Amino acid sequence: MVKKSNVNLDKIYENYNLKSVKSVLAKNAKEAEKAAVSIGFPVALKIESPDILHKTDIGGVELNIYSEEEVKKTYTKIMNSVKSKKPDAEIIGIIVQEMFSDCFEIILGYNFGYSFGPTIMMGMGGIFTEVFKDVVFRTLPVNFNDIKSMIHELKFSDLLLNGFRGILPVSENMLIDVIKKASDMAYDLYPRLDSFDINPIALRGNEHRVIDFKYILSDKLNKIRSSEAKVKNLDEFFNAKSVAVIGASGTSKEKLGNYILDSLAFHDYKGKVYPVNPKSKSIMGIKAYPSILNIPGKIDLLVISIPLSAIPGILKQCNKKGVRNVVIISGGGKETGEKELEEEIKKLSKQYEIRIVGCNCVGVFDGFSRLDTFFQIHDRMKRPKSGSISMISQSGTVGLAFLEKMGDVGISKFVSYGNRIDVDEGDLIEYLGNDKRTKVIAAYVEAFDNGRKFLASAKKVSQRKPIIVYKSGRTPQASRVSESHTGFLSGTFNIIKGVFNQAGIMSVDNFEDLVAASEVLVMQPRAKGNKVLSITNGAGTVIQAVDKIDEKGRLRLAELSPSSKVKLKEKLPSYVIIKNPVDLTGSATDDDYEVTINIIINDPNVDIIMLWFVFQDTPVSKNIYSILGNINKACSKPIICGAIGGEYTYYIGKLIKNEGIPVYYSVNEWVAAAEAISK
Amino acid sequence: MVKKSNVNLDKIYENYNLKSVKSVLAKNAKEAEKAAVSIGFPVALKIESPDILHKTDIGGVELNIYSEEEVKKTYTKIMNSVKSKKPDAEIIGIIVQEMFSDCFEIILGYNFGYSFGPTIMMGMGGIFTEVFKDVVFRTLPVNFNDIKSMIHELKFSDLLLNGFRGILPVSENMLIDVIKKASDMAYDLYPRLDSFDINPIALRGNEHRVIDFKYILSDKLNKIRSSEAKVKNLDEFFNAKSVAVIGASGTSKEKLGNYILDSLAFHDYKGKVYPVNPKSKSIMGIKAYPSILNIPGKIDLLVISIPLSAIPGILKQCNKKGVRNVVIISGGGKETGEKELEEEIKKLSKQYEIRIVGCNCVGVFDGFSRLDTFFQIHDRMKRPKSGSISMISQSGTVGLAFLEKMGDVGISKFVSYGNRIDVDEGDLIEYLGNDKRTKVIAAYVEAFDNGRKFLASAKKVSQRKPIIVYKSGRTPQASRVSESHTGFLSGTFNIIKGVFNQAGIMSVDNFEDLVAASEVLVMQPRAKGNKVLSITNGAGTVIQAVDKIDEKGRLRLAELSPSSKVKLKEKLPSYVIIKNPVDLTGSATDDDYEVTINIIINDPNVDIIMLWFVFQDTPVSKNIYSILGNINKACSKPIICGAIGGEYTYYIGKLIKNEGIPVYYSVNEWVAAAEAISK
Repeated sequence: MVKKSNVNLDKIYENYNLKSVKSVLAKNAKEAEKAAVSIGFPVALKIESPDILHKTDIGGVELNIYSEEEVKKTYTKIMNSVKSKKPDAEIIGIIVQEMFSDCFEIILGYNFGYSFGPTIMMGMGGIFTEVFKDVVFRTLPVNFNDIKSMIHELKFSDLLLNGFRGILPVSENMLIDVIKKASDMAYDLYPRLDSFDINPIALRGNEHRVIDFKYILSDKLNKIRSSEAKVKNLDEFFNAKSVAVIGASGTSKEKLGNYILDSLAFHDYKGKVYPVNPKSKSIMGIKAYPSILNIPGKIDLLVISIPLSAIPGILKQCNKKGVRNVVIISGGGKETGEKELEEEIKKLSKQYEIRIVGCNCVGVFDGFSRLDTFFQIHDRMKRPKSGSISMISQSGTVGLAFLEKMGDVGISKFVSYGNRIDVDEGDLIEYLGNDKRTKVIAAYVEAFDNGRKFLASAKKVSQRKPIIVYKSGRTPQASRVSESHTGFLSGTFNIIKGVFNQAGIMSVDNFEDLVAASEVLVMQPRAKGNKVLSITNGAGTVIQAVDKIDEKGRLRLAELSPSSKVKLKEKLPSYVIIKNPVDLTGSATDDDYEVTINIIINDPNVDIIMLWFVFQDTPVSKNIYSILGNINKACSKPIICGAIGGEYTYYIGKLIKNEGIPVYYSVNEWVAAAEAISK
Repeated sequence: MVKKSNVNLDKIYENYNLKSVKSVLAKNAKEAEKAAVSIGFPVALKIESPDILHKTDIGGVELNIYSEEEVKKTYTKIMNSVKSKKPDAEIIGIIVQEMFSDCFEIILGYNFGYSFGPTIMMGMGGIFTEVFKDVVFRTLPVNFNDIKSMIHELKFSDLLLNGFRGILPVSENMLIDVIKKASDMAYDLYPRLDSFDINPIALRGNEHRVIDFKYILSDKLNKIRSSEAKVKNLDEFFNAKSVAVIGASGTSKEKLGNYILDSLAFHDYKGKVYPVNPKSKSIMGIKAYPSILNIPGKIDLLVISIPLSAIPGILKQCNKKGVRNVVIISGGGKETGEKELEEEIKKLSKQYEIRIVGCNCVGVFDGFSRLDTFFQIHDRMKRPKSGSISMISQSGTVGLAFLEKMGDVGISKFVSYGNRIDVDEGDLIEYLGNDKRTKVIAAYVEAFDNGRKFLASAKKVSQRKPIIVYKSGRTPQASRVSESHTGFLSGTFNIIKGVFNQAGIMSVDNFEDLVAASEVLVMQPRAKGNKVLSITNGAGTVIQAVDKIDEKGRLRLAELSPSSKVKLKEKLPSYVIIKNPVDLTGSATDDDYEVTINIIINDPNVDIIMLWFVFQDTPVSKNIYSILGNINKACSKPIICGAIGGEYTYYIGKLIKNEGIPVYYSVNEWVAAAEAISK
C-alpha cells in the first residue's frame, strides 16, 4: 500500500464502531496476564518479531489459553522455544489476542469508479471470493432497503443467515448495521480513498470482527460527477418542423447524406427539408443551400454526416442561425482514438447551448412525426408504426434491429446516441419519463459514462413506467486499481447488476429478451404476482421452460387451486394431465383450450397464463386466434403465447398477435416475456 | 446411517490406500506420549467422552504440541480442566491426533443411480459444496483421461493446483491417484452400496487425508443394466416398402389415423399403403382391410393410433403375419400413470422380436424414402428435403419443430421415440452411427432411461460423426438417496454433463442452439481450432458475442497475425479499426468485406471466420451473397454469418444460405454455431 498521507488510516474503521480482533503487545509475562484479563478468555499468544515469518513452526503460537496462570506459563514456554530455535531473532514481545473462531468470513469493500463514483461491495470472504465471484454492489450512499436487498442477492447469504455445521447463524440486523458502518466510512472517505477491502470480516451470531483492512489512497481528489439530467430542448429532436441536412451531394449520389435526405424528404415526414451543400444547387430535386446561414426559414434540427473536423465551424453557424438541435451521424471520433475533436465539439455544445445527439450514430426516429435521420433506406429497413415503446441505444446497429422487430407493435421515440458528446442515457431516460406517449422504455447500453446520472434518472422514472435495459460489454476488464479485490470485481458486470437493482430497472441478458420484454409490457396488463401456469398441446417445450424458470429464479410455477382442478377434470377429456402444465395432448381442440383458459382466468393461484401451441397438430383449428382474441378482451391477467415451427406457425402466430396477444417463437423469449410482465 | 451388514465398512477406504488422519486413543499420559511419537509431531490432544459435546469450551482440546514432554503436561492439563468443569462426565481417554492443517478440502462421492449405474463425483468440499454446486461426475469405471478431464472441469481446481494464501499447491498426480482409488473402491462396492461421501478429504502438496467417510448400504443388490444396443430390424422403419395403418376411419374423418394415412398415401412416399379398419371398406379412396391378417402382401411397417388396450392383440396378429416393425403413435401409457399396459406390450415386443417405436410419439420420417407417420398434415407442416442430418427426439413437438427448421438443410432419418417401449436412444445412436447417409446426429432428450446404453453407443459413434444433444429436464429433483451429498447433487444436470463429456457428445443448452449446431456441421468444414475472428459493418452485436464467448469459455478471440494487420491496413480505408472484430463501419462496401476475408483466410491465427452484417446499411449490396458464395467454394475454414433485421435481412440471408453458408439471426445462435464447428 502506497501511503501518501500523514494520517494513519490503518484502524480508521474503529472510528465507525467496526471492531477488530482485540490484541495487545506484551513485553513480559505480567503484561501478558493483564492483557489477557482485559481481552477476556480464551486468548491466543503469538510471538512478535520482524525476523520470524513462520511462527508456528518454532513454537511461537499457542491457542486456547483459559487462565492467567496458563498465560504466564505459556509466555515462558513460547520465549524458551523461540530463543532455542531462533537465537538470533530480535524479539519485540508477545501478542495476546482474542480468540474468534467458528465464524463466517465475508468481504466488505469499497471502490471509487469513473462511472458510478463510490460503491460498496459485499461478498463471500476468504479463499473463494474470486473463484465464485459471489459479490453484490451498490452505489453510495445506501439506505436500509438497499442493504437488505444486497444481503438477499448474495447466494452465500442463505448459509450466513441460517448457520452451518455448528457455526452460529449471523444476525441480519447486525449484518445490516455492519454494512451501514462500512458504507458510511466509505462515503466519508471517498474523496481521498480509491478503494478498501475489509477482508475478511468475521461474523458469528451477533458479533463481528475485522480481521484485515487494506486501503488504497487516491493520488487526486475523487469527485462525484453531477447526476443532474438535462432535458432542455430535447423535444425538437422528435418534433422538428424543419430539418437541414449537411452531407448530401448533387454529384456523388451514394453519400450517406443522400440516403438521409431520402429518408426525410421522400417518405412520411411532413416537415420542411433543406439540403446544404456549397457545390450543388439542388440535390435529389430539392433546392440546396450553400450553408445553413442561407436557409430562409427557421431550422429546428440539423443532421450532419460529414467528417468531424468540419463540425466546430458548423456549430458556430448554428449559434448564429439559432439552431439548437444537431444530430451528428459521422464516426471518426473517440472510437478511432480521435478524442480532441470530440472534446472541442462538446465544449462548443455547452457554450452555445446546442443539444447534440451522436456522434457515431444513426440518429433519431419519431413514430408520430415520422421524422427520421437514418441512412438505411426504406427498401432495406421498414420503419415501425407509431406506438408506446421508446428505445435508446448506444449502438445504431442494435437500435435499428430493435425497430424492425417492433414494426407492428409500434414505437414512440428512438435515439441512437452513439458517442454521447452531449445527450446521454441519463438525459434521455428523464425526458422519456415525462413523455406521455411513452409507456415503456427500452435501452441498449455497451458502457456507461456518467452512470450516476443514469441511475438517478432511472430511479425516478422506474416508479412511473418500466425501464428494460440490455447491458452488453460484460467481459471483466482489468481495473484501474487492480491491487484491491473490490476494484477487481467492480470491473465485471456485478456493479451494473447492483445499480440496476437500486434503480428499479429490469435487466435482460440478450437482444431477444429485450424485444420480448418490451413487447409484452405494452401489449398485456402487468401481472399481480409471479406465478405462471402453462397450457399446452405438446408438453416437450414446457419442460424446457421449467428449466429456464428454475435457472433464473424470478417466476414460480403456480399450483392449481382445488376448485380449478375439479372443474378441469369435469370439462376436459380423461387423458388430459391436470397439473402445471395442463397437458391437453396432441388431441387438443380449440374448445379444450378455451375451456381451460376460462377456468384458469378465475384461479387466484395463477398470475400469468402461458399458452404453448403446436399449431401443426390438426385438432387445433385456425380459428383459435379469434377465440384467444375474445378471451383477451375480457381478461385482466396477462396471456403470453409460444410456438415453434415453420410457415403455418408464423401465419397463425401473426393472427393471434393482431388480437393483442404476443407470440414468441422460442422458449427463452416466452419465459423472458413472462418474467417482464410479472411482479 | 442404517447398517444392514455385519461387515464394518467405516474404514474400508484404508484397504484402497486412502489415508485417514492418524489418531490414537490414549488412556494415560504414557500412552499419549507413545502415540505422539508414532504419529509424528506436531499433534493435537482431544478429550474423548460421550458426555462432552463442546470440547473446546471446557479446555478439552490442545493443538500444536511439539514434544513428548509437552504431551505429558498437556495430558494432565486437559484432564484437570475437564474434571474441574465437567466432574460428572464419563471420560474414555484422550485422542492423540495428527495435525493436518493449511490444506484444501474436497469431496469425493459415489452414487448408484437408475440410469447411469455407479458414478463418481468430485467437488469442492466443506461449507460450500451445496451452495455453489461446483461438482463433476463421471460414470464408473473411469480411466486416466476421464479423471484428468474431471479435475480440469471443476472451477475450484485452478485454486487447488496453484495453491492459495500459503496453502501448498496440490499435486495433480496425487489427486488423480486419490480419485482413482476412490473410484476403484466405488466400483468394487457398488452392488451393496448406494452411496458414499468422502467429505472432506484434505489435500496438501503430495498428501491427502480422509477426514470423514459416510456411506449408505443398499437394501437390494445393485446391478448395472445391459448397455448393449439392439439395431436389428431398425432399417425397416425408414425403408419399408409397404405400410399398414390402424386408426384411420371411413366415417370419422378427423381421426389422427386419417391424417397419418394422408401423409403416407397422398404425398411423396412411393410404397404401398394399407388402411386397416373392420368397419370400412375403403378410407380416403383406398381399399381398407378388416385386419392386418387380411392384407395380401408383406407388411414392412405397421402404424397404430388406436388406444393402447387393443395393441397386445394386434401384436399377436403381427407375429402371425410376420410384421417386424411397429410404430405406436397413441398416448395413454405411463405418462398418464398406466404403466402395466406398456409393460405388457414391451414383453410381447421381446417375445415376438417385433421392434416398436413409441408409444406416445409422432413416429418416423425418412428424407430419402419420404416415408412419414406424422398426423401433422402437409398444409401445416412442410416436410424437410433430404440431407445428412439425422435427429432423434423424445418429444414429438420438439422433433417436428426441428424438422421444420431444417427444411432447406435436409434430413436423413428422424425418430420421435416417445415412451421408448422398445427402441431407445442407445439403439438409435448405434444405428445412425452406421448409417452412411447420416453425417450429423442431433438428439433431444428429456430424461434418460438406460443411460449407460446411450453412453456406450455415443462413445463409439462420436468418434466417427458429431452427436449434438439438447437435454432438458434439468431442474434438480429430490434424489432417492437424499441423505448423501453426492446423491443429492446427482439429481441435478451435473451428472449428465459428466456423461456427455465422457461420451464425446456436444451438449447444447436450448433448441435454437441444437438447430444452429446441427446446421453448421453439415454446411461447413470442421475448424482446426477454436480461435474466432469477426468482421462486421456494425460492431454493436459483436460486443454481445464477446460476452457470450467469454461466458461459455469454449472459443477464443483470435489475435490477427502481424502480416494480416499490415495487409489490412494497406487495403482498407483508414477509418477501419483493425483488431478483433475488424470493424469496417457502416460505410463498408462489398469490396471491403471481400478484401478482408481473403486476407483472413490465410491467417494461421484464425480458425473460424464470423461475419456479422448490417444488411440495412446501403453501401453493402445485394451482390454480397455471390461474393461470399465464391469465397466459400475455395475456403477450407468455416465461415458463419449473422444479421438481425426485418424482411430485407431475411431475403439476403436466404441468398447467402443457398450458397452453403449458414446465416443466424441472433447472436447466441451465431456463437453456438461457431462453438459447434470449433475443435
